Amino acid sequence: MKRLGMVWCTLGVAALILSASPGFGGSGGYALKDFGSFHIGGRQVSLENLPVKEIVFTKGSPPVKVNPNGDFEVEQMYVQYFIPKKQVSRYPLLMWHGGGLSGVTWETKPDGNPGWMNYFIKAGHPVYVSDAVERGRSSWARYPEIFQTEPLFRTKKEAWEYFRLGPKDAYDPDPAKRKTYPGMRFPVEYFDQFAKQGVPRWVTNDAPTQKAYDALVQRVGSCVIMPHSQGGNFAFNAALHAPDRVKAVIAIEPSGAPPSGPELEKIKHIPMLILWGDYMNEPDLALPWKKFEAGVKAFADDINGRGGRVDWIVLPEIGIRGNDHMLMMDTNSDAVAAVIQEWMGKNDLLRYWAGK
Amino acid sequence: MKRLGMVWCTLGVAALILSASPGFGGSGGYALKDFGSFHIGGRQVSLENLPVKEIVFTKGSPPVKVNPNGDFEVEQMYVQYFIPKKQVSRYPLLMWHGGGLSGVTWETKPDGNPGWMNYFIKAGHPVYVSDAVERGRSSWARYPEIFQTEPLFRTKKEAWEYFRLGPKDAYDPDPAKRKTYPGMRFPVEYFDQFAKQGVPRWVTNDAPTQKAYDALVQRVGSCVIMPHSQGGNFAFNAALHAPDRVKAVIAIEPSGAPPSGPELEKIKHIPMLILWGDYMNEPDLALPWKKFEAGVKAFADDINGRGGRVDWIVLPEIGIRGNDHMLMMDTNSDAVAAVIQEWMGKNDLLRYWAGK
Repeated sequence: MKRLGMVWCTLGVAALILSASPGFGGSGGYALKDFGSFHIGGRQVSLENLPVKEIVFTKGSPPVKVNPNGDFEVEQMYVQYFIPKKQVSRYPLLMWHGGGLSGVTWETKPDGNPGWMNYFIKAGHPVYVSDAVERGRSSWARYPEIFQTEPLFRTKKEAWEYFRLGPKDAYDPDPAKRKTYPGMRFPVEYFDQFAKQGVPRWVTNDAPTQKAYDALVQRVGSCVIMPHSQGGNFAFNAALHAPDRVKAVIAIEPSGAPPSGPELEKIKHIPMLILWGDYMNEPDLALPWKKFEAGVKAFADDINGRGGRVDWIVLPEIGIRGNDHMLMMDTNSDAVAAVIQEWMGKNDLLRYWAGK
Repeated sequence: MKRLGMVWCTLGVAALILSASPGFGGSGGYALKDFGSFHIGGRQVSLENLPVKEIVFTKGSPPVKVNPNGDFEVEQMYVQYFIPKKQVSRYPLLMWHGGGLSGVTWETKPDGNPGWMNYFIKAGHPVYVSDAVERGRSSWARYPEIFQTEPLFRTKKEAWEYFRLGPKDAYDPDPAKRKTYPGMRFPVEYFDQFAKQGVPRWVTNDAPTQKAYDALVQRVGSCVIMPHSQGGNFAFNAALHAPDRVKAVIAIEPSGAPPSGPELEKIKHIPMLILWGDYMNEPDLALPWKKFEAGVKAFADDINGRGGRVDWIVLPEIGIRGNDHMLMMDTNSDAVAAVIQEWMGKNDLLRYWAGK
């Protein structure tokens, strides 16, 4: 890969793609054929023998008896979709967020600028953004009766340090005192705005989450999956479960991947891009990022050893610097998206591509 | 009000408005100037002295120590907005859902047909759909440390009976055995799909919820609020808190309203529509709907007694029958929306209106 050359080429091509895209609504708008939402997956659960409670709904009013027993829908997943009028991509793009977050990851950035959902819709991709089971509009269920454990709530310190905005113990309650790595492209002055996007998570819902994602792939049909972080492992497994339908995986800093082994033969024909931001080699990281990366590398190497098609891009190695774990929110997020768009063009995932 | 005549007029006018609307993307699409999302309101809360827990994140991996203490953003509200390219309405439309639900109320209906969000965007309204504090993408906070009480989870039985799909004890776990009122327009075969939209609720978050709604009105500026059910009281109070900005309130079956009294002078200039569905007079309702209605009627009468502008429409009285509490999801939801659209035209809330 011609590294520095590619960056400029990428930016130029992206500008061309965007300005010429028939997905544009003209003068900066969006021409959509359709948009909407649905819940997919889930099952009915019935609770019984829980005590009836007396609840005061309005201050001063007498308490009302509430019977918590009965039937509930649980483990469903919320999906919102946007279909551009002129589709440039060959397949819909499924955007799967990471841990402790929801589909909001892909929407307007914390600084108010358009995020990747808008970018890829504008570039002519039908986009499906989901909230994982238990998160956001997917809702959540009683614990410990249905979900087995207590939820976890991410602190701002954890978000700041785990997402590589700065090293371990770089967070301070006072925004002015928070340390960042040099050249940081996350809009740190909007970090508290980003923290508002956080949602509780459980560690015992992987199976229903995978099931809902698999159901989504069955419903959409041929598709490209773009997972972030925790979403990576779900996306790789979704490919294993539907190797004919998943036409590509574009994994943004996946935190895990399936184990190596002969099963990976099933997905060696699928073009995959695994993309990493900056600061992966810092000595004082709060999370063992190199270990996560090594786990995913073993997966990529195994597939490629079988004649697979996994590409591996580390952004600073192609001259794009300053990106943390939430790179879709960074001030240079369009430049990173352009790298992906170009990769899609090269892998025949676009109907029209200026780079051809 | 010429009741039966108005229905036919309404439907005709709505057809005209929709077919002629410059908000249309042509051949059934949507031309948007912009769309995106943000979180508004909320505050930082710090927790301390909670015990550190050991959590197993991946089966078979050693447990990881998780410190739940630290800083969190809480009580923020998620808002998604869609701005049509050609705006027909004078003001943005804020859609506020009811209890135990999220902004999904306004989106695609459980039967897969377009809901009111799509209807009003298509009719040229900039639309802001929010998830109330504690619901959906607004996220929720630890209890009892931050939220004071336990959440409540609505059973399917409660939803079926409270929302007037049938009388008390009409619900059955077997979908084939569920009783409905005659002429029911809710797509009952998709009731379980609707149940997937339910989210837990607290009874102790009214103050932060009102605060976030008030902040939204401040951010958007002049606006029309369309609340449903529990949202009604928040919307009437938002009007009291910002009587210059709230240009109209269109309350769909509001479950409550502020008390009568001289304070209501402040909002007597604001056109308001209060709209009710069918089955309000059934003798065997699971909720005291007539009592709710009477509370809101006292509010409306007080304002109108001061020279106010509150209109009161009971759908079956104008010939539209079969609507339950979730009337924006009923098979005749477009006909109900058309009644609202015509009311907006008559109250000078549209820039172009065929009825003029």
